[in-house]
Amino acid sequence: MVIEAQEVNKNENQESANISKKQQKKLAKDALKAARKDEKKQTTENAEPEEDISAGCYGRFNLIQSEDDATSERRKRVFTHVKCLQKGIVGSTVWVRARLHTSRAKGKQCFVVLRQQEFTVQGILAVSEKTSKAMVKFASNISKESLLDICAIVSLTPQRIDSCSQKDVELNIIQIWEVSRAKPQLPLLVEDASRPVTDEDEGLNIRVNQDTRLDNRVLDLRTPANQAIFRLESYVCHLFREALSNQGFIEIHTPKIINAASEGGANVFTVSYFKGNAYLAQSPQLYKQMAIAGDFEKVFTVGAVFRAEDSNTHRHLTEFVGLDLEMAFKYHYHEVMQTIGNVFLEIFKALRKRTSELEAVKQQYGFEPFKFLDPPLCLDYSVGISMLREAGEEVGDEDDLSTPQEKLLGRLVRAKYDTDFYILDKFPLAIRPFYTMPDPHNPKYSNSYDMFMRGEEILSGAQRIHDPELLTERAKHHGIDVEKIKSYIESFLYGCPPHAGGGIGLERVVMLYLGLDNIRKTSMFPRDPKRLTP
Amino acid sequence: MVIEAQEVNKNENQESANISKKQQKKLAKDALKAARKDEKKQTTENAEPEEDISAGCYGRFNLIQSEDDATSERRKRVFTHVKCLQKGIVGSTVWVRARLHTSRAKGKQCFVVLRQQEFTVQGILAVSEKTSKAMVKFASNISKESLLDICAIVSLTPQRIDSCSQKDVELNIIQIWEVSRAKPQLPLLVEDASRPVTDEDEGLNIRVNQDTRLDNRVLDLRTPANQAIFRLESYVCHLFREALSNQGFIEIHTPKIINAASEGGANVFTVSYFKGNAYLAQSPQLYKQMAIAGDFEKVFTVGAVFRAEDSNTHRHLTEFVGLDLEMAFKYHYHEVMQTIGNVFLEIFKALRKRTSELEAVKQQYGFEPFKFLDPPLCLDYSVGISMLREAGEEVGDEDDLSTPQEKLLGRLVRAKYDTDFYILDKFPLAIRPFYTMPDPHNPKYSNSYDMFMRGEEILSGAQRIHDPELLTERAKHHGIDVEKIKSYIESFLYGCPPHAGGGIGLERVVMLYLGLDNIRKTSMFPRDPKRLTP
Repeated sequence: MVIEAQEVNKNENQESANISKKQQKKLAKDALKAARKDEKKQTTENAEPEEDISAGCYGRFNLIQSEDDATSERRKRVFTHVKCLQKGIVGSTVWVRARLHTSRAKGKQCFVVLRQQEFTVQGILAVSEKTSKAMVKFASNISKESLLDICAIVSLTPQRIDSCSQKDVELNIIQIWEVSRAKPQLPLLVEDASRPVTDEDEGLNIRVNQDTRLDNRVLDLRTPANQAIFRLESYVCHLFREALSNQGFIEIHTPKIINAASEGGANVFTVSYFKGNAYLAQSPQLYKQMAIAGDFEKVFTVGAVFRAEDSNTHRHLTEFVGLDLEMAFKYHYHEVMQTIGNVFLEIFKALRKRTSELEAVKQQYGFEPFKFLDPPLCLDYSVGISMLREAGEEVGDEDDLSTPQEKLLGRLVRAKYDTDFYILDKFPLAIRPFYTMPDPHNPKYSNSYDMFMRGEEILSGAQRIHDPELLTERAKHHGIDVEKIKSYIESFLYGCPPHAGGGIGLERVVMLYLGLDNIRKTSMFPRDPKRLTP
Repeated sequence: MVIEAQEVNKNENQESANISKKQQKKLAKDALKAARKDEKKQTTENAEPEEDISAGCYGRFNLIQSEDDATSERRKRVFTHVKCLQKGIVGSTVWVRARLHTSRAKGKQCFVVLRQQEFTVQGILAVSEKTSKAMVKFASNISKESLLDICAIVSLTPQRIDSCSQKDVELNIIQIWEVSRAKPQLPLLVEDASRPVTDEDEGLNIRVNQDTRLDNRVLDLRTPANQAIFRLESYVCHLFREALSNQGFIEIHTPKIINAASEGGANVFTVSYFKGNAYLAQSPQLYKQMAIAGDFEKVFTVGAVFRAEDSNTHRHLTEFVGLDLEMAFKYHYHEVMQTIGNVFLEIFKALRKRTSELEAVKQQYGFEPFKFLDPPLCLDYSVGISMLREAGEEVGDEDDLSTPQEKLLGRLVRAKYDTDFYILDKFPLAIRPFYTMPDPHNPKYSNSYDMFMRGEEILSGAQRIHDPELLTERAKHHGIDVEKIKSYIESFLYGCPPHAGGGIGLERVVMLYLGLDNIRKTSMFPRDPKRLTP
């Protein structure tokens, strides 16, 4: 257990730091008062007041183990979030729990930058009649990333501090306590991991590569960009559910362990299931359809999706978060396709209001704002093929698009329609799963669609076949063992509304909205063929 | 594909049915007008108007394949949900898409009950000058559970129809179309599966057992009770997230495939992962803690949790939905425990307002309303032990409670405090996982808690050890190979706030709130050692 006595020592004179004389006087008076008051409270914390005038104002807490009595005074403290340290509260004495981001001892002063999530503020501690040399030394020796409880007076800075998120105020530290100590040697510095990505020569600036980041994810997650990315990802998930709930969708939960490889059998993980084998679901497809046949009419589900693909690309994971939906419609699957298109619009519109998080990501990775049309652009697959051919690509009517072709089409669409989001409708039947409803007018095509962000597919969807005979016929045509998908086919024997839906990859949506180059940046603990830790 | 010509025949006289003469006259006029109008539209639907005055008013749709032109008129139809068929719209002509729940031919009349989700309404079709014998015959021959498009006039009923959810109105059918046909022989009737569970002699009423229900889940899900149960479950999930989001929690997603059996190694499913092995996570525990160490402060996650336990009980599943949360606190884990307690209060308070769903469940399963106190009752483990001893149980201070003891304690608490929900705090250290923070005052106890509904555990939680040295020591004490949990322990090397959290089993919460006897009733597609389908 980390339990050590605090360091103690004598006091020296304070040096003025960045505040006007008048302010200084007032603040100093308040600080003294506050410190004295707190000193009394902190007598339980290994203070030796007779030797150090700052005793009881600094040190290392015992491991916080939720003591009932000794800490009852402490428990009354109200903490202020670093993001709330603004001009309006100048002169107040606040408690802050934050990490030591950086520190710099300079003579009898110690300048620190404190960080709480993506917010940073400067703090100052200087030897004075109320602050001992020992206390300043203690502060100077704290290791970066340690978690601290700071009591301080909020002061105006004479000039903006560009390197902190809180640019107009700083903290005049009265008390400083180590809550949880970081190892002095860190595998990466959050400062380095936060540095903007530019094409310029790197000079002396250290960059942190992807694997070092992922190996030390706990540290890497502390960068402002990562704090923002995962807040935005949480928000996308919220927006997806909210948009659908508002339209009467309900959330369902579908099993991840299944008895048969549902979609053909390739790329599926096998699980030992008691005395037999089972598989990990590659999508909730069959189950959300059963929920439709079970009369829930409009359902969505958010959950893990597994693909045993040995692909080591910037956009493939072996486990990702699927945002799936399925919806009964009356006469035309475009009822559903438009619903999905509108869900994306709602997500895009809400995201662009999250300016502080977007700014944090932009600071590090710099991206072009995401463009979209309202209503969203929808093109037929055949139109997409024509555009590609006009651009010199050789591609057949019923060919699937390669990744480079998808990206090219994205650029062509962007150039022509000024949108980073569009829907491609009416895919060739031959390149879609067996349960896709054929187009009623042209058997070469199907009632299916993909949606794209910045030229990469983020949703695949279709009207599904709700007739058991046609479904059986199509499964056989695809060479699927009908016996293995019996319970799926039987779901449609007892009357089923026509329905359509789609599945979205959450990490891809966030990656592409933010113009990031790798899906591992939007998966908190990514899984790929080579990575299973942390 | 199900494409058949409609049946056609001659008309006969209408018989009056449950409406006043005046109403009848008006309705008949409207009906005729509507039917004529619709007849024109429906000429594409295989009508043979020269032989049957009802031609174009009934039949079987071609498979709905999202035709563009032929159905453009149809696509303009506005549908009314069965639950909206109420007194206020008597006299209106409506389109309804609903299932045939039951039908009864009686001379020249046909009475049907139409069902949409948990709502039912009576419909009447009788031979008349506007309705042919063939049309009534067609209606009489429709198989139960088939999905129908019905055009009808909403009429008042002379007396309440107790057997339907819509008791004051019925539908005078003008058009009736089969959208999707059910097989005439069903493995179970929704009517039977919906029958109230009573202790009385079953008589001639057929009951449907659990396995038949689960084997034919698509049909079973259509009962009013199941429609309600899964809507409530969706709502619980929503409430959990909403309560936490409002307090600044963010949602994270944690990997299900992990490289080491995190919590000791027992009861874990093995997955083939490319050339090696991996495991299915038994909880998101380690990952939500890493998110805390990564500065997200308050996180929750909703997702699949896997337990390879060969338990065939009423409350165990091999895969269930975990509602997990983790939260940094300042000085005492009760900050977190109270937050969780309040989340439950918010869920319970919101649930009791969902009277129509609760009534639907009660109709079939009959349960006592769920009681709770505000603020929730919290007892120390030692108090629980004393209560059990007073009731004659032999139980040691540091013993874990058996399931019967938990239930007994639930009854004792209910009798004494009149609550079905309570928190048991300060569990013996010996019976908790290695990462549980010991009590600072008594090493026999720990900073951990369980929460109970109707005497069954639904949440287990604790303050976690955030100090790497103590964590290593405790892991060794539990005989855990420290090397295998290295990346977990390393998460705490770089400063970590004290934190606590808990994990809730979604299906258990819903089961116990509704007083149901089996967790398979609240899992849409349950997984247990013996069930992997559907």
